[in-house]
Amino acid sequence: MIKIAVDGMGGDYAPHLVVEGAVQAADDFEDLEVIITGREDAIKRELYRHKVRGGKISIRHASEVIEMSDTPVQAIKKKKDSSLAVGIQLLKQREVDAVVTAGNTGAAVASSTLTLGLLPGIKRPGILITIPTLHGISVAIDVGANIDPAPEHLLQYAIMADIYTRYLLRKKKPSIGLLNIGEEESKGTETLQEAYKLIRVSGLYFIGYIVGRDFFTGNSDCIVCDGFAGNVVLKTTESIFEMMVALISKEIQKDWLAKLGAFLCKPAFESIRRETNYEEAGGALLLGVDGVVIIGHGISSAKAIRNAIRIARESILEHVNDHIIEGINSRLNSNSSKTIPISRVNP
Amino acid sequence: MIKIAVDGMGGDYAPHLVVEGAVQAADDFEDLEVIITGREDAIKRELYRHKVRGGKISIRHASEVIEMSDTPVQAIKKKKDSSLAVGIQLLKQREVDAVVTAGNTGAAVASSTLTLGLLPGIKRPGILITIPTLHGISVAIDVGANIDPAPEHLLQYAIMADIYTRYLLRKKKPSIGLLNIGEEESKGTETLQEAYKLIRVSGLYFIGYIVGRDFFTGNSDCIVCDGFAGNVVLKTTESIFEMMVALISKEIQKDWLAKLGAFLCKPAFESIRRETNYEEAGGALLLGVDGVVIIGHGISSAKAIRNAIRIARESILEHVNDHIIEGINSRLNSNSSKTIPISRVNP
Repeated sequence: MIKIAVDGMGGDYAPHLVVEGAVQAADDFEDLEVIITGREDAIKRELYRHKVRGGKISIRHASEVIEMSDTPVQAIKKKKDSSLAVGIQLLKQREVDAVVTAGNTGAAVASSTLTLGLLPGIKRPGILITIPTLHGISVAIDVGANIDPAPEHLLQYAIMADIYTRYLLRKKKPSIGLLNIGEEESKGTETLQEAYKLIRVSGLYFIGYIVGRDFFTGNSDCIVCDGFAGNVVLKTTESIFEMMVALISKEIQKDWLAKLGAFLCKPAFESIRRETNYEEAGGALLLGVDGVVIIGHGISSAKAIRNAIRIARESILEHVNDHIIEGINSRLNSNSSKTIPISRVNP
Repeated sequence: MIKIAVDGMGGDYAPHLVVEGAVQAADDFEDLEVIITGREDAIKRELYRHKVRGGKISIRHASEVIEMSDTPVQAIKKKKDSSLAVGIQLLKQREVDAVVTAGNTGAAVASSTLTLGLLPGIKRPGILITIPTLHGISVAIDVGANIDPAPEHLLQYAIMADIYTRYLLRKKKPSIGLLNIGEEESKGTETLQEAYKLIRVSGLYFIGYIVGRDFFTGNSDCIVCDGFAGNVVLKTTESIFEMMVALISKEIQKDWLAKLGAFLCKPAFESIRRETNYEEAGGALLLGVDGVVIIGHGISSAKAIRNAIRIARESILEHVNDHIIEGINSRLNSNSSKTIPISRVNP
């Protein structure tokens, strides 16, 4: 059995939708056992509502709750019995194989890093997200764990993104792009220029610098970026979708013909909503820590939680962390032996 | 008369649409004289097509053209007789009051900074763009001139954005937000934390940190950001709109009812396109250099060029640079005297 701890109190709709998502996942995957951490009474009440009594879902009591407004330091130092900390401890003791949380991202990163430690050879963890593009799914790393990365960190992100894309997205030779403000080699900060040189001789399929425009084109399977820019892009993107929807709704209300038109277009819009929906992706992976940790969106629905658990399960089954250790070992010890010509064309 | 030099060879559709836009502007504004710089024969040919012979439009020959792929150094050192350099020289000599270019941004920034110099007290120039939001027009600075800003530069961007918003957007008390990865004071790099302290005591109406999500909500009239993140957001935004349009077109083609629906929605979509269109904005301002310089989008249409010239004209009429000098003087010399309580609510 695969055992996954779910932070029952993390997220804007916890424990309600978190428990619902955990129940869905336990139903969908036969090999799965879910341990929900958090206030026993609150979680029990939710489980009763779903008529779950024992079986594949259990509760591990934790008396404290980390709020979205807590700083990572506050969360870790002052709330040692939080639902997050208890989950991470279970993973540390190998009582579970993974942790899923939709709570405070900063606290999840700090708690995982301090409690679990990093994989051998890894210098800094990174948050990886999947992105819907015009040509399928791409990934971006880092989107907020490391806002001032060294060149070496960016190289390690490239290696981890390559592994994730090979094993979880089944791409044979993922292309790697390094986010910059221009495609020319002369552009960008010294850190980026140094990272460029490191990735270029890493043996990865490196297509060079990419720009913000490439985020949703799918030109690059893996987008490597600093956590500051990655985070800003991620949050801006969300607001653009909201703005588009608000503008469209406002305009359409003005005119009954447009209202009819919108009604007729609805299936097309629904299909796009599915394709671009974060619920399908379910969560971001915190890569580089010694354990599988998935960080869901704060506004996670039950479906998003269910899918975050699915990704945790797949990461365990595919031994993503073992492959990262291998990848870091082989690439960092044979840096200059293999070089691949730089091209922007996919193989 | 207001005299504006237009870089006749800069932009993807130069000189064709650049000349067309210049002709439109000269027609629309009686007080305007336009000097187009670039290859005389090519520009003359375009002017003939519009039946312009003399009058308010003239040509200043320049033998060289800066390509989009040229680095700023190449552009400045090797192409001293480029259409851009000739325009900037005219501004330096005060033969014109402003320069408009849709060419290579890096070259425009470097050439303006080196040739014109900076306004008294300004340490680094910044590129300001206008953003369509749910609540009217906001501005963001910097979106690419300065990818590694010091705290002091960010303060100066805040002061310049405040001036622009007061005088060109007619907002009485513009709110200033500093782009970060979270709204809490503890978040972000040391540079940002230092900038936060400086802006807080500047006397500006500072609402604190904002995140990517706030870019299109209009919560903040002025968004101050580092040039790297600003540039990435700007370019990502463009690609999202393209992706949305491509996805919608693809989905709608599948189904004739949806096609009919899309037809009925068309006026609503057209209205949104107008509201969010870069053509209306026309161009970005390079603020902080000693002269009015407008940098248009590389793909500028005739209308975008016309509107870039309009913004140049307004900046001249409103004496934006004089107000910046005053603003820098008064704010930097009376830093600690005025503080305004931090609030996220607009007055």
